[in-house]
Amino acid sequence: MFEVARVLGEVIRDVHKSDGEALAQFGIDFNCSMILGGQIRGEGCRLFQLYSAGNFIEATEENLYFQIGEAKYGKPIIDRVVSPETSLDEASKAALISMDSTLRSNLSVGLPLDLLCYEADALKVTRFANIDNKNAYMSLIRNTWGARLQQVFSELPDPDWKDLAENKKTVNSVRIALTTTGEKKDAGSQT
Amino acid sequence: MFEVARVLGEVIRDVHKSDGEALAQFGIDFNCSMILGGQIRGEGCRLFQLYSAGNFIEATEENLYFQIGEAKYGKPIIDRVVSPETSLDEASKAALISMDSTLRSNLSVGLPLDLLCYEADALKVTRFANIDNKNAYMSLIRNTWGARLQQVFSELPDPDWKDLAENKKTVNSVRIALTTTGEKKDAGSQT
Repeated sequence: MFEVARVLGEVIRDVHKSDGEALAQFGIDFNCSMILGGQIRGEGCRLFQLYSAGNFIEATEENLYFQIGEAKYGKPIIDRVVSPETSLDEASKAALISMDSTLRSNLSVGLPLDLLCYEADALKVTRFANIDNKNAYMSLIRNTWGARLQQVFSELPDPDWKDLAENKKTVNSVRIALTTTGEKKDAGSQT
Repeated sequence: MFEVARVLGEVIRDVHKSDGEALAQFGIDFNCSMILGGQIRGEGCRLFQLYSAGNFIEATEENLYFQIGEAKYGKPIIDRVVSPETSLDEASKAALISMDSTLRSNLSVGLPLDLLCYEADALKVTRFANIDNKNAYMSLIRNTWGARLQQVFSELPDPDWKDLAENKKTVNSVRIALTTTGEKKDAGSQT
């Protein structure tokens, strides 16, 4: 699979060579990102993300998944529920919830979705779905997840401002509410 | 407040005039976004977002809130729980959960946060908190929200692949799992 990623990387470079200049004349950056996953019989499943320059990285236990495209809206839910122990079905569920978050927060992203879930050693596609707005499972996800989230939200206690403001500080200047004021110094301690 | 937004917009333009060229020499785009909120006695509360060009937009019932900075990770939860009926305390809670999602998914964003919540007609700051990693309410949000989310996630049924793939389609070519294949044609029907 590493060799496949190398070949695909070379293809991306070839396309850049043939199209890059023409794109630049229209003020368009050559921009390409791809996810490559698969298995060759006798070897393990591997997953790569390839960049515009044809270089790539591989998924690991610490870095379980890749997203491409409009990725940020759907990342928090994956980060909260997916671990190396997550089953394939649960991962599919997480992927659909993640896409639902993106669909709701960015109107330029829309159904249908193609969902392909590859089972190690199957060596063929056993789980594939084209999901449009009539799909019953996707409708269940869309309705139930949002409703349950609202319920959990309403069950969390509201802030008590006396407790919340336990670090007394004078408001000397206009502060922009909810923007961070500092750089994270020790990422580990805050995750 | 509209006049205040105009003045602030002019200030942004002045800064662009004085610093823009020097920044450009270092290959840095002049980039600035600000949220301006407030109230003048006898008038209503108003909230504006200002852009680099000094132009601005105002929040409305249909467009309730603004975010600046690393906004995408934290947008879905706000979209799911905040409405014109949301109380100020609930909105503060939503803002903190939204920031928690961003903190978890982007290591370059970190505590502390300044949270300022302005109550209409108070004409002064009554609720302000500087929230660091020792803040008890923030810790409660961080722990409880994540745990409850995982619980809701595990309670949702896993996909049944036979049902899921109800729209039979042959996999003729390698499809990139979970990227959208179409543009949203009718945003309204899918929200």
